[in-house]
Amino acid sequence: MGYRILETDDIPAYLSERGHWEDLDDIAVREVSDGNMNRVFLASSADGTRSLAVKQALPWVRVAGPSWPMNPNRADAEARAYEQIAKVAPDEIPAVHGYDSENYTLVMEDMSDLEVLRTLLNEGASYGPHTSARIGELVARLSFATSDFGMPSAERKALIAASVSPELCKITEDVVLSEPYLEHEHNHWHEGVADLAVSFRADAELRTEVAELRHLFMTGAQSLLHGDLHTGSVMVGTRDGAPVVRVFDPEFSFVGPIGFDLGLYWANALVSEERARALGGLTDHADQLRLSWEAFETEFRRLWPARVDTFFDDAYLDRFLRKVWTESLGYAGTEVIRRIIGFAHLTDLTTLEDPVGASRRALLIGRELIVRRRELTDVESVRAVVRVT
Amino acid sequence: MGYRILETDDIPAYLSERGHWEDLDDIAVREVSDGNMNRVFLASSADGTRSLAVKQALPWVRVAGPSWPMNPNRADAEARAYEQIAKVAPDEIPAVHGYDSENYTLVMEDMSDLEVLRTLLNEGASYGPHTSARIGELVARLSFATSDFGMPSAERKALIAASVSPELCKITEDVVLSEPYLEHEHNHWHEGVADLAVSFRADAELRTEVAELRHLFMTGAQSLLHGDLHTGSVMVGTRDGAPVVRVFDPEFSFVGPIGFDLGLYWANALVSEERARALGGLTDHADQLRLSWEAFETEFRRLWPARVDTFFDDAYLDRFLRKVWTESLGYAGTEVIRRIIGFAHLTDLTTLEDPVGASRRALLIGRELIVRRRELTDVESVRAVVRVT
Repeated sequence: MGYRILETDDIPAYLSERGHWEDLDDIAVREVSDGNMNRVFLASSADGTRSLAVKQALPWVRVAGPSWPMNPNRADAEARAYEQIAKVAPDEIPAVHGYDSENYTLVMEDMSDLEVLRTLLNEGASYGPHTSARIGELVARLSFATSDFGMPSAERKALIAASVSPELCKITEDVVLSEPYLEHEHNHWHEGVADLAVSFRADAELRTEVAELRHLFMTGAQSLLHGDLHTGSVMVGTRDGAPVVRVFDPEFSFVGPIGFDLGLYWANALVSEERARALGGLTDHADQLRLSWEAFETEFRRLWPARVDTFFDDAYLDRFLRKVWTESLGYAGTEVIRRIIGFAHLTDLTTLEDPVGASRRALLIGRELIVRRRELTDVESVRAVVRVT
Repeated sequence: MGYRILETDDIPAYLSERGHWEDLDDIAVREVSDGNMNRVFLASSADGTRSLAVKQALPWVRVAGPSWPMNPNRADAEARAYEQIAKVAPDEIPAVHGYDSENYTLVMEDMSDLEVLRTLLNEGASYGPHTSARIGELVARLSFATSDFGMPSAERKALIAASVSPELCKITEDVVLSEPYLEHEHNHWHEGVADLAVSFRADAELRTEVAELRHLFMTGAQSLLHGDLHTGSVMVGTRDGAPVVRVFDPEFSFVGPIGFDLGLYWANALVSEERARALGGLTDHADQLRLSWEAFETEFRRLWPARVDTFFDDAYLDRFLRKVWTESLGYAGTEVIRRIIGFAHLTDLTTLEDPVGASRRALLIGRELIVRRRELTDVESVRAVVRVT
């Protein structure tokens, strides 16, 4: 039996076959597909005590249809990433009950009681004290565990080989790390930032720096990444009175530069800040880069004594963390820019009645983060960029 | 039929079975194993008009025997490297007539009319005008073709996955890039450099820089490398009046930092220079780093317009080549040091009646190349280090 595309009506039998659901008289299924790429179904019992999510990768981009084919084996990357994260941060991802590699289908925890972080932020919520710290900690644990510090050399090489992800990496290489700086049909922008789009395309300094970040993305096999760690890949909420943070959708996972994960999160935090500023609703937005970095650094340093390769000493750790910091700033800049003048924009800005001011500020901050990343050696210097922009 | 270890008497039937030799009444075989790792046989016809080399990887290190097991699949890496190099520099490697992955055996051109470069140098020969330039050109062609500049992104990812080489990389990570800076049973040295061995082990600055080079070796998936490009991996000679240069033994091949190949060659050139200086026979030794670098840079720039990814512009090329230069100097330093106070020493020095002066100079030069590599921005500044040491 080969790959088959699951429809809503197929889910009960599918879950039963796979051993995830016994009572087929008590199951209701609805499709809740939301992201660009995949289909998601929720199955639940009538009394709501039992529920599961079923996520299937289609052989195309869901929102585009069969005219944009995409290998469904991206679900392998997602399952592999969940497997690695589960070893070190099981509470920060949905519980995975099973992966069916034949049908590229994950059966997972139902998170419909939680909310997507971006959605909450767009509705005016603050981040709260936990979210960014949990993200930073997750990145530290995943990146340490899958680096040459946390994983024996031979196991690492096997992980690198198993985790290559040509098709999805190519999307990032193109959509994030080159197209916004070129004439490309994917690009579009609000007319109020057209002058900046033109000037960025003509900006030789910016392009060389982006080229360096792009080449590092292609060659810097530091750690397994989430690969798409924006605020739409984070769910938050409360269960039994305790804050819950769940990172999901790691289908862009591969072994790359750690700064790419931190940078994407920072970029989205910075854009959320500009939205809040534009609406006069700024709360704790300005503090999220610091909170996530400090949690990342603290956790990475906490794990360091357990490294498997002690040739890397404390002095090298300091140097390595500085490098991750600098690279994170660069990737943050590229993510900000591509989200405003590239292919896929952020609702943080597009839903503003007048997005121009916030978009312009974000673009200029993004450029500074890229071209001045080596001078911006601490959180305060980044905040200074935001202040003077 | 599984893997079988070939003995001299097996070679005629083996070559016949594999379709490399027809007349079994006219074949003579002798074993000529020379390197540390593998067995090599030469088969030839009585009149000498036909000859082949047969190289087999054993499931252990040849010179150590079964007590040091080593996966014979290192021959896969060698065959893969030859296959890639053959596409871009077929004249700089032996012709490969076939690879038998079941028996980890390569059937190749007989190069017994050529000489190992190190052997010639040790006997007092000069490099001559061709050798280092051909090496630089080969590294440029191989590294360009297998970089993200010369190879489409998806093909590159497949190459990275296919080329991981945990066991042999680990040898380099240990023997070249950490043990010489630690107390380790592998290490040994001439008593005349014992003070330097002690001081290098206590040298925090040196260790941090080596750690950075080591981490780059483990994570910097820039291009397919030869992986062991010292003067013992190069054969030279003359055929039909023309100079011949053949690089061989690429079993340490993997996708890593380009500077590792250049650096190994430079280190061996620098050590050969110290030998020649000690013997008062200095000829063109001092010019080999320049010749190989200039040939590398010229060829890389010549290939650049044919890059598959034009987002990388000329300004990025300049930056990338500077980075390769700097990294090459660092790796050159590590190779010099490990060859004097590490596990495997160089006959260039060990065959000197009094190796102390040359060894001390080489060690000090090696350290400078590592810790000052970012300041040594051109060939002249490297020569200045050699002069003042």
